[in-house]
Amino acid sequence: MSTLIKGGTVVGPTGSHRADVLIDGEKIVALLDPAFPVEAETTIDASGKYVIPGGIDAHTHMQLPFGGTAASDTFETGTLAAAWGGTTTIIDFAVQKTGEVVQDGLAAWHQKAEGNCHIDYAFHMILGGVDGDALKAMDQLVTDEGITSFKLFMAYPGVFYSDDGQILRAMQTARDNGAMIMMHAENGIAIDVLVQQALARGETDPIHHGLTRPAALEAEATNRAIALASVASDCPLYIVHLSASKALEAVAEARDAGRNVFAETCPQYLYLTLEDQLGAPGFEGAKWVCSTPLRSKYESHQRDLWKGLRSNDLAVVSTDHCPFCFKDQKELGRGDFSKIPNGIGGVEHRVDLLYQGVVDGRLSLERWVETIATTPARMFGLYPQKGIVAPGSDADLVIYDPNGRTHISAGTHHMNMDHSAYEGYEIAGHVDTVISRGQVIVANGTYHGRKGHGCYLKRGLSSYLV
Amino acid sequence: MSTLIKGGTVVGPTGSHRADVLIDGEKIVALLDPAFPVEAETTIDASGKYVIPGGIDAHTHMQLPFGGTAASDTFETGTLAAAWGGTTTIIDFAVQKTGEVVQDGLAAWHQKAEGNCHIDYAFHMILGGVDGDALKAMDQLVTDEGITSFKLFMAYPGVFYSDDGQILRAMQTARDNGAMIMMHAENGIAIDVLVQQALARGETDPIHHGLTRPAALEAEATNRAIALASVASDCPLYIVHLSASKALEAVAEARDAGRNVFAETCPQYLYLTLEDQLGAPGFEGAKWVCSTPLRSKYESHQRDLWKGLRSNDLAVVSTDHCPFCFKDQKELGRGDFSKIPNGIGGVEHRVDLLYQGVVDGRLSLERWVETIATTPARMFGLYPQKGIVAPGSDADLVIYDPNGRTHISAGTHHMNMDHSAYEGYEIAGHVDTVISRGQVIVANGTYHGRKGHGCYLKRGLSSYLV
Amino acid sequence: MSTLIKGGTVVGPTGSHRADVLIDGEKIVALLDPAFPVEAETTIDASGKYVIPGGIDAHTHMQLPFGGTAASDTFETGTLAAAWGGTTTIIDFAVQKTGEVVQDGLAAWHQKAEGNCHIDYAFHMILGGVDGDALKAMDQLVTDEGITSFKLFMAYPGVFYSDDGQILRAMQTARDNGAMIMMHAENGIAIDVLVQQALARGETDPIHHGLTRPAALEAEATNRAIALASVASDCPLYIVHLSASKALEAVAEARDAGRNVFAETCPQYLYLTLEDQLGAPGFEGAKWVCSTPLRSKYESHQRDLWKGLRSNDLAVVSTDHCPFCFKDQKELGRGDFSKIPNGIGGVEHRVDLLYQGVVDGRLSLERWVETIATTPARMFGLYPQKGIVAPGSDADLVIYDPNGRTHISAGTHHMNMDHSAYEGYEIAGHVDTVISRGQVIVANGTYHGRKGHGCYLKRGLSSYLV
Amino acid sequence: MSTLIKGGTVVGPTGSHRADVLIDGEKIVALLDPAFPVEAETTIDASGKYVIPGGIDAHTHMQLPFGGTAASDTFETGTLAAAWGGTTTIIDFAVQKTGEVVQDGLAAWHQKAEGNCHIDYAFHMILGGVDGDALKAMDQLVTDEGITSFKLFMAYPGVFYSDDGQILRAMQTARDNGAMIMMHAENGIAIDVLVQQALARGETDPIHHGLTRPAALEAEATNRAIALASVASDCPLYIVHLSASKALEAVAEARDAGRNVFAETCPQYLYLTLEDQLGAPGFEGAKWVCSTPLRSKYESHQRDLWKGLRSNDLAVVSTDHCPFCFKDQKELGRGDFSKIPNGIGGVEHRVDLLYQGVVDGRLSLERWVETIATTPARMFGLYPQKGIVAPGSDADLVIYDPNGRTHISAGTHHMNMDHSAYEGYEIAGHVDTVISRGQVIVANGTYHGRKGHGCYLKRGLSSYLV
Repeated sequence: MSTLIKGGTVVGPTGSHRADVLIDGEKIVALLDPAFPVEAETTIDASGKYVIPGGIDAHTHMQLPFGGTAASDTFETGTLAAAWGGTTTIIDFAVQKTGEVVQDGLAAWHQKAEGNCHIDYAFHMILGGVDGDALKAMDQLVTDEGITSFKLFMAYPGVFYSDDGQILRAMQTARDNGAMIMMHAENGIAIDVLVQQALARGETDPIHHGLTRPAALEAEATNRAIALASVASDCPLYIVHLSASKALEAVAEARDAGRNVFAETCPQYLYLTLEDQLGAPGFEGAKWVCSTPLRSKYESHQRDLWKGLRSNDLAVVSTDHCPFCFKDQKELGRGDFSKIPNGIGGVEHRVDLLYQGVVDGRLSLERWVETIATTPARMFGLYPQKGIVAPGSDADLVIYDPNGRTHISAGTHHMNMDHSAYEGYEIAGHVDTVISRGQVIVANGTYHGRKGHGCYLKRGLSSYLV
Repeated sequence: MSTLIKGGTVVGPTGSHRADVLIDGEKIVALLDPAFPVEAETTIDASGKYVIPGGIDAHTHMQLPFGGTAASDTFETGTLAAAWGGTTTIIDFAVQKTGEVVQDGLAAWHQKAEGNCHIDYAFHMILGGVDGDALKAMDQLVTDEGITSFKLFMAYPGVFYSDDGQILRAMQTARDNGAMIMMHAENGIAIDVLVQQALARGETDPIHHGLTRPAALEAEATNRAIALASVASDCPLYIVHLSASKALEAVAEARDAGRNVFAETCPQYLYLTLEDQLGAPGFEGAKWVCSTPLRSKYESHQRDLWKGLRSNDLAVVSTDHCPFCFKDQKELGRGDFSKIPNGIGGVEHRVDLLYQGVVDGRLSLERWVETIATTPARMFGLYPQKGIVAPGSDADLVIYDPNGRTHISAGTHHMNMDHSAYEGYEIAGHVDTVISRGQVIVANGTYHGRKGHGCYLKRGLSSYLV
Repeated sequence: MSTLIKGGTVVGPTGSHRADVLIDGEKIVALLDPAFPVEAETTIDASGKYVIPGGIDAHTHMQLPFGGTAASDTFETGTLAAAWGGTTTIIDFAVQKTGEVVQDGLAAWHQKAEGNCHIDYAFHMILGGVDGDALKAMDQLVTDEGITSFKLFMAYPGVFYSDDGQILRAMQTARDNGAMIMMHAENGIAIDVLVQQALARGETDPIHHGLTRPAALEAEATNRAIALASVASDCPLYIVHLSASKALEAVAEARDAGRNVFAETCPQYLYLTLEDQLGAPGFEGAKWVCSTPLRSKYESHQRDLWKGLRSNDLAVVSTDHCPFCFKDQKELGRGDFSKIPNGIGGVEHRVDLLYQGVVDGRLSLERWVETIATTPARMFGLYPQKGIVAPGSDADLVIYDPNGRTHISAGTHHMNMDHSAYEGYEIAGHVDTVISRGQVIVANGTYHGRKGHGCYLKRGLSSYLV
Repeated sequence: MSTLIKGGTVVGPTGSHRADVLIDGEKIVALLDPAFPVEAETTIDASGKYVIPGGIDAHTHMQLPFGGTAASDTFETGTLAAAWGGTTTIIDFAVQKTGEVVQDGLAAWHQKAEGNCHIDYAFHMILGGVDGDALKAMDQLVTDEGITSFKLFMAYPGVFYSDDGQILRAMQTARDNGAMIMMHAENGIAIDVLVQQALARGETDPIHHGLTRPAALEAEATNRAIALASVASDCPLYIVHLSASKALEAVAEARDAGRNVFAETCPQYLYLTLEDQLGAPGFEGAKWVCSTPLRSKYESHQRDLWKGLRSNDLAVVSTDHCPFCFKDQKELGRGDFSKIPNGIGGVEHRVDLLYQGVVDGRLSLERWVETIATTPARMFGLYPQKGIVAPGSDADLVIYDPNGRTHISAGTHHMNMDHSAYEGYEIAGHVDTVISRGQVIVANGTYHGRKGHGCYLKRGLSSYLV
């Protein structure tokens, strides 16, 4: 079946141009000058709208077990919400728990996702127990499973934490097999001391989650990860959910030195703050408990993060989508902030929230597309199948209406959450139409997709390395 | 007339994909999946080759008067040579001499170029005398003449030199009208002292041209230009022919701060050195007298410049093509290095020399295309007409053969020079076919273009600003 | 005649210890354990007080001609005020005006000072016209006149301004003869443009003096001076009246690189701000017009300057004492801030104002002594004659009472000014007794000195170089 | 008994002056102008010589148990050697082994030292097991035992290693009780991986000790220690045996920020290299196995360390004296570099080796005295009892002869070592006379001191903090 998207402005990572897009089956088969005559079974009018590659959210945690509960979005509900928001691919984190065989962890993740996704999906692998077997498993996953990125944690001692020796070994392995190491960069050993001291002082409110995870300890860990990567013969390194100015400086310094060091940030760090959200009265702040935490508005973090997005010191915007309902779930930490499930849901709103940055003059249209789609695809080995509007690529497309409006609210969103981190936000733009592998799944405010449409993507090695 | 480029790999700034390119008249009208059936009057087989946007050399000086002589390439010979080397657009520098009306300087340049060019051309404007009239002329050139970038000199007192007050005023004007300020950043006042002292000591050989222009004075001027641009409410700034590590650091620092500061380097700084070329025995080194000068091989400049290209702290590679024959021209400075006409010719070899960087593992294929074509187009307001393979864009294309070989030599090159700065270089690649606005001008080692084919391009404002 | 200072705590640049100080004639002849028996004609009880070397103010402008008027303190009134405030040596700036013979300028300064000073004095030389004769004069002044430091201006085009070539030549000469180059580091060429533009916009109030001299242009000039000094084979460089954070960063970077780059700041930059003083209502702000200007309280300049004093990136605190009366003198600039005589008077209060920094926990007692006395003496070739409490040194001493109080006011100060920059300041300490070359000149609130007591000091080369 | 040191030049941290020094009993009682008449029982002629405070070696490990053996110098032999070399105070490291009660470790150290020392001695405390008891012991040692500095190890997992949580807790305790945290900054966890991998590859020679401890892992740990100190409300931090340029940069950055971060280096890092010493043929390199290791001569470490000494980014020179005989001791690691006892002996030669830096133009005379005596005294709470030539201070003095010569050799040194790290070095200066608490212990090449003369020094808090 062929579809022609007619009259739109195709926005790519280096600029915009008027072009029609012809889809045949699951693929884009042609980009055409608007005057070029072509026939198609279906024509979609994109006049006055942007045609962009479907969003790629490279950091989600669907139904992740956490502290006796689990992230409230399943692969089904989470990918549905993503689709509504213009995201047509997620890369979720499969988990090897400490003591578990890596491949078993992966199998469990496949089982959760398979047949349940509305959009295409891929996996990174969290290594919760780096040992000889796990290092061998890294090779096998790269070779056979299409998993080419592995996340380690410098935080969460006793849970996901890897010590610097484990990190170094994993980096050496990645260096050899071409994979990317992703890092949760916070000094968890020191943070645990601060947490225990705060609790001992009776400081139990949600804001203390942020106060016990100071920016200096994110910067420190970021610097350490970069140093370890250099010792591992310059293993490629990707810092997840970077939130602090000084951590950004460490990344920028490595990048100025020409090294393969990359970072992502998330919408929550661009819009929300320690004082205004995490410090909300009573237990309300629990909604915004996530790690790395929201940062102080009295420092320059947000300004610096937008700057980093412009300069490409921050290459990607992901969501770290890890939703928990306020009732029942976030409640687990009432009286002890350290027991609040960590996570913010946002998979549905990333494309919009970043577009608002364009409207506000903080980001160019090109960088919007690049940070939400093109670079994630290149970074994680999905390009050119995903992330670009080009012949031969999957027909994952969003028609974005710069004259539309989007109102964010728990009352209308599709994520399985009883609140929204961005309740009441108004976006001066709108996801008009969403196409996934040639299928129109969102159009005219109606959902046309289906659970099971989404396929597992075996990824190649990163093509973003310099 | 329609032409189909079939079977090639289109390389763009974010990656490669297999696609056919359909040209109709002067324009690209479609990018097509290879399986998509399409008819064309002519078909070019690009199997096993790269299809890239035609090169854009954003820094040339055709027939520039200099010290009683003139650059030896006319617009005719220079654009012919450019075409042979895969460059389909040049941006040359029109000159306002001190005391001259800006528009008169521009008219003189149009007169030299018009009807003589083999490929499309545009102009930057050199301001040699910033005063109230010149500032008004800047507005007029932006509005009416398609000239949106103005070059100032911190070097050459008494010739092109602007003092910091003139620079500041020009930057303020550019800030208001949206133009880009381009800067030759060397402290010419201090350099002139060093030059006079060297000559007084009897140090007259070509190498003293380099020794009297120390890297510290390029770094100083670069820092100063960046500071003045910040005082001018962050006027966009583009540093030309950056050659020194410390100057690169100043640019990187400004970029990390999210500012609109950009820089180009040139092939000569990536391959040639103070000792090996400028310090060649006798007067031989005169061939490589250019400003900024070649830098010492005992310092890390070349390594740092390649690194800057990878990290985008260096956004563009231009040639600063300004050829002088060794006989008659360079000879003017025998016995006094300060009288050697300044300039190196290279417009013909930029695409090849940078491709060699890909072969050598110093640059990715994507960055090759981005630095020689896409970014110059975006930087200087030619995008998407130029710099990208997309429907609606001018059909300026190069079919590059990664299995070809190119031998650089004065005996075979097309520039009007009696020597080559890169004599004997072997490139592991070859410009196979060159297409300018739909016309095949180079194919199978034969030239099919003609003088006068090239059109003047009115440029818009830069679309590269962050 | 012998005097014993008994029972005090001698404070030196590395710490404090209990010791008695024996003076014989003009010299200190012994430092003694308090238990050591010694006889003296006079004994001064210093119990509970600090005994410190007399203050050295390395930056004053007594009776400096400026814009049709002259600084209101003569050498007589200015040195009297200095003495009251615990300063026993000043280094004033003799001036070579453009076109003047250096030695003539010096002779004129000797004439003003000779026989009029209450305390010892030395001269730096301002070079307002660097040419071949001036360079030769530098050698002569170093060899014969005891003048080993030369100040140049990057500000004030047409008055004291030197261009970068003149600066470079003077630095080369200093490098060869061992002198120190002192630099007023502001980009005067760019500032003049801003001043003219502000006046053209009708912005005539005193605050515009500050707004047209942005911190970025102090930082730029500081960086440039440092670069030129490096080109001059690392000529020693001393930045005067540093006021801006970014200028401090440039100095710190050079110092981290092990270079002979030094800087002073002044009390006005540590205590006063653009908004609160220079921006005072009406024309009141004229009192605080000085260059470099007071900086914004909304930036971190003051915090950074105190930090720089602690870390020795700022080595010296001088006053840049250059007083003008509000009536008659500052009035010259009503309606045109650029005509306000530039300068703040403070020679009387430096020792107290910095001691307040000790009380406030911003500075150690040791650094207080070091920055106001020991380092100026070392920096400018007066050590160990001055700046240290040691046998053989001049008996220039201050007995400072940490339990005293000092109230600063135009009503009580001794400077020839009709206002005080620090009106109403309360200092938690007091200059109790002042001794100059063995003579008690201030004691018990009474002045015992006399005009003409002060001698001209021929200085040696700096002993502070690293 | 009184002694007069007559005719010498007293060198202090800010300069030199001619003065006689009068000693009565154990104390200096007067500094006197040479012309001042004074009587003494004994007069020492110091004409043409420097009189300096006795050296303080703030980092020694006498008879330290290590890997089944012990450092070969006892307190008796080690302090004797120190005395010969002009060092009159050592601060040795008492050790709490993991699991041991801190006070028991201290008692054991007292037992080794008491009655055996030729010169005064003090202790730092190594904490090998930071827990609640150890934190309480820190307070007790500060209050009662005169121990105000505590050393932690980021290296040596399973031996002395503290994790980041332990470090943070110890820093918080130090912040509260005023003590200094000293840090062995190397990432031992990562190093252990590299060591195991090297051994597994059969790389067993001494040079692999250095290759498995890369500079990047010293820089990383240094940065981490600085970050943890900032989280501990800016606890004072002192980095021991800094050897790598990038570690120095981290210290310099913290110091530019005005923080209480200090560092020492050692003579071995100033003179010896990875290639020339550690890489000596066969097993010879074992002599120079120490941690941090000697660094590569192909990088700029030595140049940068000298620079850091000049700029005070390196405040102190200690020896890390920890000698092992080549026979029997170093031999333990033949075939496995990781088993070579770690340490270099040098307590006898520090004063001379640094004086050679003065002769070579790398250090000023003042900085020589400051780095080897005055600053260690201030840093570690011994000032003004030690480290300065002043009335009331202990009469610990060295008369140093700039016209003497010193030949370093195992054949003539007094340390209990069968080799010298500096075999064959010639020093253009000589320790002429050494006085400890008023007793001449070295004179005319003869030793006059005795075991048991040295007293334990209870130290106060650091007076060096800014």
